[in-house]
Amino acid sequence: MKTLNVGLIGQGFMGKAHSNAYCQVGHFFDSGYRIRQKVICGRNAESLAKIANTWGWEETATDWRAVVERSDIDAVDVAVPNALHAEISIAAAQAGKMVLCEKPLAASLDQALRMAEAVRGRPNLVWFNYRRVPAIAFTRRLVDEDRIGRVFHYRARYLQEWGNDPTRPPGWKLDKATAGSGVLGDLLSHLVDTALYLNGPIAEVSALMHTFAENRDVDDATLLLARFANGSIGTFEATRYAVGVRNGNIFEMHGQRGMARFNLEDLNRLEYFDATDPRNLQGARNLLVTGPDHPYWSNFWKPAHIIGYEHTFIATLGDFLASLDSGSEFHASFEDGVAVHRVLDAAERSARQPSWVAVK
Amino acid sequence: MKTLNVGLIGQGFMGKAHSNAYCQVGHFFDSGYRIRQKVICGRNAESLAKIANTWGWEETATDWRAVVERSDIDAVDVAVPNALHAEISIAAAQAGKMVLCEKPLAASLDQALRMAEAVRGRPNLVWFNYRRVPAIAFTRRLVDEDRIGRVFHYRARYLQEWGNDPTRPPGWKLDKATAGSGVLGDLLSHLVDTALYLNGPIAEVSALMHTFAENRDVDDATLLLARFANGSIGTFEATRYAVGVRNGNIFEMHGQRGMARFNLEDLNRLEYFDATDPRNLQGARNLLVTGPDHPYWSNFWKPAHIIGYEHTFIATLGDFLASLDSGSEFHASFEDGVAVHRVLDAAERSARQPSWVAVK
Amino acid sequence: MKTLNVGLIGQGFMGKAHSNAYCQVGHFFDSGYRIRQKVICGRNAESLAKIANTWGWEETATDWRAVVERSDIDAVDVAVPNALHAEISIAAAQAGKMVLCEKPLAASLDQALRMAEAVRGRPNLVWFNYRRVPAIAFTRRLVDEDRIGRVFHYRARYLQEWGNDPTRPPGWKLDKATAGSGVLGDLLSHLVDTALYLNGPIAEVSALMHTFAENRDVDDATLLLARFANGSIGTFEATRYAVGVRNGNIFEMHGQRGMARFNLEDLNRLEYFDATDPRNLQGARNLLVTGPDHPYWSNFWKPAHIIGYEHTFIATLGDFLASLDSGSEFHASFEDGVAVHRVLDAAERSARQPSWVAVK
Amino acid sequence: MKTLNVGLIGQGFMGKAHSNAYCQVGHFFDSGYRIRQKVICGRNAESLAKIANTWGWEETATDWRAVVERSDIDAVDVAVPNALHAEISIAAAQAGKMVLCEKPLAASLDQALRMAEAVRGRPNLVWFNYRRVPAIAFTRRLVDEDRIGRVFHYRARYLQEWGNDPTRPPGWKLDKATAGSGVLGDLLSHLVDTALYLNGPIAEVSALMHTFAENRDVDDATLLLARFANGSIGTFEATRYAVGVRNGNIFEMHGQRGMARFNLEDLNRLEYFDATDPRNLQGARNLLVTGPDHPYWSNFWKPAHIIGYEHTFIATLGDFLASLDSGSEFHASFEDGVAVHRVLDAAERSARQPSWVAVK
Repeated sequence: MKTLNVGLIGQGFMGKAHSNAYCQVGHFFDSGYRIRQKVICGRNAESLAKIANTWGWEETATDWRAVVERSDIDAVDVAVPNALHAEISIAAAQAGKMVLCEKPLAASLDQALRMAEAVRGRPNLVWFNYRRVPAIAFTRRLVDEDRIGRVFHYRARYLQEWGNDPTRPPGWKLDKATAGSGVLGDLLSHLVDTALYLNGPIAEVSALMHTFAENRDVDDATLLLARFANGSIGTFEATRYAVGVRNGNIFEMHGQRGMARFNLEDLNRLEYFDATDPRNLQGARNLLVTGPDHPYWSNFWKPAHIIGYEHTFIATLGDFLASLDSGSEFHASFEDGVAVHRVLDAAERSARQPSWVAVK
Repeated sequence: MKTLNVGLIGQGFMGKAHSNAYCQVGHFFDSGYRIRQKVICGRNAESLAKIANTWGWEETATDWRAVVERSDIDAVDVAVPNALHAEISIAAAQAGKMVLCEKPLAASLDQALRMAEAVRGRPNLVWFNYRRVPAIAFTRRLVDEDRIGRVFHYRARYLQEWGNDPTRPPGWKLDKATAGSGVLGDLLSHLVDTALYLNGPIAEVSALMHTFAENRDVDDATLLLARFANGSIGTFEATRYAVGVRNGNIFEMHGQRGMARFNLEDLNRLEYFDATDPRNLQGARNLLVTGPDHPYWSNFWKPAHIIGYEHTFIATLGDFLASLDSGSEFHASFEDGVAVHRVLDAAERSARQPSWVAVK
Repeated sequence: MKTLNVGLIGQGFMGKAHSNAYCQVGHFFDSGYRIRQKVICGRNAESLAKIANTWGWEETATDWRAVVERSDIDAVDVAVPNALHAEISIAAAQAGKMVLCEKPLAASLDQALRMAEAVRGRPNLVWFNYRRVPAIAFTRRLVDEDRIGRVFHYRARYLQEWGNDPTRPPGWKLDKATAGSGVLGDLLSHLVDTALYLNGPIAEVSALMHTFAENRDVDDATLLLARFANGSIGTFEATRYAVGVRNGNIFEMHGQRGMARFNLEDLNRLEYFDATDPRNLQGARNLLVTGPDHPYWSNFWKPAHIIGYEHTFIATLGDFLASLDSGSEFHASFEDGVAVHRVLDAAERSARQPSWVAVK
Repeated sequence: MKTLNVGLIGQGFMGKAHSNAYCQVGHFFDSGYRIRQKVICGRNAESLAKIANTWGWEETATDWRAVVERSDIDAVDVAVPNALHAEISIAAAQAGKMVLCEKPLAASLDQALRMAEAVRGRPNLVWFNYRRVPAIAFTRRLVDEDRIGRVFHYRARYLQEWGNDPTRPPGWKLDKATAGSGVLGDLLSHLVDTALYLNGPIAEVSALMHTFAENRDVDDATLLLARFANGSIGTFEATRYAVGVRNGNIFEMHGQRGMARFNLEDLNRLEYFDATDPRNLQGARNLLVTGPDHPYWSNFWKPAHIIGYEHTFIATLGDFLASLDSGSEFHASFEDGVAVHRVLDAAERSARQPSWVAVK
C-alpha cells in the first residue's frame, strides 16, 4: 500500500467536498493508495483550524507557496477561486507535485494552456466531477456500444436560480476579477465538458451572453448554438436566472439508434430510449443507474440504494488513484480542461462579434 | 349500410357522453351501421329540448316506458341513475330491443343477474368505457402476448377527492336509494372490471367500507384485498376522499416477465417494464400509446396526437357496431357486468363480517 | 341563431381536423352561430366523396376558384399545402369571404403580408390551434395576472422524429416548392406563435438551419437564439430528428415571480412554480388544467376528464364564432400569422449570414 | 468534547452502513461527542480484518459476549440477523451499555418487549433510518403544522423484486429461523414505523401473507388493510415480487388540507399538495427537500446538492449523539420498535385467522 500525501489549498465549499472525498475514497475504492491528509491551507486561520479538525487534516497553513514547496507533499489540490488556479497549479507543478485542480481549469484559455504545459508528464486532474455520475458514465458506455448511433441533436442546460435571489450575499462568483466569468466558467464549463466527453469535439459556436442584474460584471446567462465535429448540432444554456429550478444540469442526446436524457436533480436516474425496440413498445426507459453492470455500482451500496452529489468526487478520486497505481491514462485531465476552455473562449468571442466563430 | 335507431334514456352527464359517441362514431369507425338518433328521454322537458337540439336527437320524450315500446327503435341506451338500470333494461329487452346500459350494470348482484337473463340472445353492452382506453386495451394485448408472464401482484386505485368538497351539491351519487352504493358501484366497479379484463377472475376478497361524512348512507371509500384465481394477489382502493388527486384511475401489474402501470389522468400513456431486457437497460418505459400498432390508433388522429375521455365511449360504440355487423362476440357485455357485481357483492359481505369471503 | 355557411378547401389530415371542429363546435360552444357545411373541395374526387359522406359535407367540388366565388358561402377555410395558402386566401377575401387559413399562414413573409392586406376588415383566422390548449391559455392568464413577473428566460422546442424514418413516404412537407420550408414553417411557426402570445415580440435572432437527410431541400432542424423586446432571452429548437420524442411541443418560462412549463404530449397538464410560496414549500406544481376556473373547462367534460388534440380546433372555432357574434377581436388573426412570419424570415436571413439579425 | 466508545457487532451490509455513519457523523453533525470505533465483531475473522482496516475499527473480535462486557465500550451496536437482536441487545443492556439495534427490533413481539424492558433508563436506538430522510422528517413537520389536516387515507408500499431473481443466492433473509419473517420484518416494518411516525397509532388490521416461491418458509408479500386511531384508513403492501421496481418505499397521505407523497427511489423529493391553494392553481408540488428550512439541509451540502441512502444513517446517529449531549428524548427508540412489532404481530394473527384483529 502506497501513501499519497496531499496538501489542499482552499477552505470553502469545494474544500469541504474534496476533504470528504479524501476521507471516503478508501472506504469505497480499493486502489493501491492510502491517502494522508497532510495539510489544508487557507486564509482564515480561525475557521481553518475548525475545518482541519473536523475533516482530519494533520496541519493547517496560510501560505500556499510554502505548501507547494513542502517535500512531504505528493499532490497539491487547488480548490480556490478560479483566478488563482493558474498560479498555484503552475507553481505546484514546477515544484514537482501532482496537481488536482477544481473546475473550470482556469480563468482564461491562455491560462489553461499554460497550466496544461506545466503539468505535462505529471499526474493531473481537473475536478469535472460529473463525469463520474454513474448515469453519465453509463451514457458514455451507451455511446461506445453504439446504442445511440449517429447523433443528430445534443441539448444541454444548466439551470440555477440564485442569481435572482436578493437576499444572497454576493460572493466571489459574481466578481469577474476573481471568477474570470459568470456562468460561462461556473456552469457552462460543466455542460461543455460533459458534451465533449459524450459527443466529441465542437467545431463552431454562436453565443449570447447576458447579464440581468445591474452593476454586475459577469454573465448571468450564456446561450450557445453549436456544430459538433460529428455532424450533430447542439444547444447549450447556462443560467442563474432559471427561477423554479434549483440545480438542473440536464442533457439530451438524440441519435439514430437511441436517446439519452439526464438531470442532475435526479442523479441516480437516466432516461434511455431504444429506437431499435419494436415500434409499439418504444418509450423512454427510466433507468435507476444503481445496479449490476452500472458504473460504480460495486463501489457503493446495494442495488437501488441511491448515492448523492459527494459520491461523484469520491469516484473521481478513486479513478485517479487507480490510474496512478496502474499507470493508465486518467480523464478528466488538464488537457480535458483546456478543451473546455477552447469552447468557452470561442463562445466569448462569438458573443462579442456577434456571429459564429470556430473553436480553435 | 344498415341503420341503427337509438333511443337514449337519460339526460345527465352520461347522456351527454353517449350522445357525443353517437355523433362521432361514424367519423372514426367504419362499421356497416349508420346511427340514427331517434329520441332522447328525460324528466326535465325544458332542458331536454335544448339537449336534443344541441346533440341532434330527432325527438324528445319523458316516459321511458313509451320509448322502449316504440317499434321504430332498435336499441335502448340506459343512462340514468343506477337504481333504474334493471327495470328499464329488462323492459327494453322484453320489448325486443338491444340494450346498452351505463355502469355499474345494476344496484345489486341480484338485479344484475336478472338483467343478464333478460338480454340473453340479444346484443347488449355495459358502458365500461375504460376497456377501450388504448393503453388498457394494449395492456391486455401485452398479457395475451405473455409479456407480463405469471402475475404476482395486481394493484388498483381509483382516487377522487370531491367527497370532501363542502361546496358541491349532494346529487344522486350520494344517495343509497338511487345509487345503490357509493364508491363501490361508482369507482370500484371500474377497477374490478379492468382487473377482470386484464388479470382474470377474483376468488376471494377482504374488504373495508368506510364513510367519512356524517349523515351519508353510502361508502366514501372501499378498500379490498383480493386473491385472484391465477394465484396473484391484489389490493384495491376506491375513494372520494383522496385529496390532491382529481381523477386517478390507476393500476399496476407485476409479472414474472414484465410490469404495466397506468393512470387515467395520463390516458394516452402506459408504463411498461420488460424484465427480459438486459439487466442494466431495464427501466419502466413511458409509452405514448397513440401510434402504429396500438389499439385504435388508426381510428383517430396521427401518431402522438392525443385523445381524451370521450374517445373511450366512441371506441366502445365503434366496437359494438362492428360486432353487430360481423356477428362476433362483444365485450363488455351484461355478463361482464354481472362478473363485476359478483365481486362487489362479495366485498359488501366481507365488509359486514368482517372477514374474507369467497366470490360466488 | 345565425348560420355560417362554410366551404372547406383541402381533404388531407387538416381537412379532417377542421371537419371535426365544424361537426363538434355546436356541441360544446354556445355561440349565436350554427355551422352549415356546404362544400368540401379537393383534387381527389373519389376519396373526396367518401370524406364528404363521413363528415357531413353537403357537396363536393374540385375547383377551389369556383368555391370561393359561390354566393352561398360565407367563410372559406384553407387547409391545403402552404404554397397555396396565399393565392386561395386572397381570392377568397377578394370574393368577400371570411377566411380561415391553416398555419403557417404562408410560404413567405411577403405572401403573408399580402394576405393580411387582403383580409383587412373581414373576419379572419389562422389555425394556430395550440393557443386554445387550456394549459397555454391558462399560462397567458398567469402572465396577465403577473404570476410569472419579469421574464428572464423563454425556452421552446418542438421535437418530432419522423424525419429519420426511412419507411415513411416523403409527402409534401419535405418538398420546398409545396411547403415553403421544412420545420421552420411546420414546427417553429407553432413555437414562435406561442412565444409571441405568451412573451411578446422578439427583437432579434441568431439561427442555425440544418438538413440531415441527403437530397432534401428543406430544413430538418432549425435552432434559434432570441432576444425578446421585454428583455428576456430565448432558445428555440424545431426538429424532425429528435429520436425518442413523438410530438414534444414544449415551452418553459422563468420569471421573477414564477415558472411555467408545458409539453403537448401532456396536453392536459401545466407545471407551474410560484416563487412567492414559502421557500421550503416551493416546487413545480403539476396542474391538471381541466377544472373550475381553467380555460374551456366548462365547454367540455367534468373536471379531470381529459381532452385531446382535436379539442384545440373546436375551441379555436368556438372562440371565432363568439367573436363574430359579439364583434370582439379574435386572435390568432392573419396579423398574428404575419408576426410569426417576421420572425421566421429573420431566422432564415440569420441562418444565411450567419449572424444576428433584427426581426423587421 | 466527550468520547463515545463504540463496539459494532456485525460485518454484513448493515455493518458497512453503520461503519460509514461512525466515520462520517463528525463531518456533518456538531454534537458534543467524538466517536471512537473501538471494535468490530464478526464470525468471519479473515474478512473482518479487511473490513476493520477499511473502515477504521481499532480492533476486531469474534465473540460478541466478550465485546459487550468490555469496560472500555460505551455503546454496543447490533447489526446482525434479526434472530440474534434480542439476546445481544439484552446482554449489552445488562452490561450497562447503550444499545443501538438494527431494525426490525426483534424476531417477535415478545422479544421486542423484553428488549425494551432491558434498555429502560439507558440511551437506546433502533435503526429505523428512514425517519431521517429529509423528505420524511419534513412530512412530519407538515403534519405538525397542520398542513395535511384531518387525515383520510394513508397508503404505503415497499416494492422490491429480488424475490423473483433465481440467480440470487438465498441468504439469511429467506430463512425464517434467522430472519423471523420475510417481508413482514424486513420491509413492512419500515412502512409501519414511518406510518406510526407520521400518522399515529394503528387500531386494527386485516392482513394477507403470501409466499410465491416453493419451499420457502417466509412471507414473500404481505398486504394489510388498517384502521388508524385518528379515524383514517390505510393500505400497506410489502413485497419482494414487484417486478419492475427496484427499491420503491412509497407512502401517500391524503388529508383535508393537503397531500404528501414520497418514494425512496427519489429520496431527495417530496410531492406536496396544498388544498388551500386557489382551486385552479392546485397541483402536487415537486419539492426538492434539500434547501433552507428543510431538515438536515444545513448538515450536508449546498441547496439542491442531493444526498443518498447513507446519509439517513449519518443523520440518525447525529441526532442520537445530540440527544445524548442534551439529555433530550430520542426517536426512534426501542419503544418505537416495540410499537412496530405490535402491528406486525397483529398482522400475523390476522393472516392466520383470517379476519380483522386489534393491535394490542
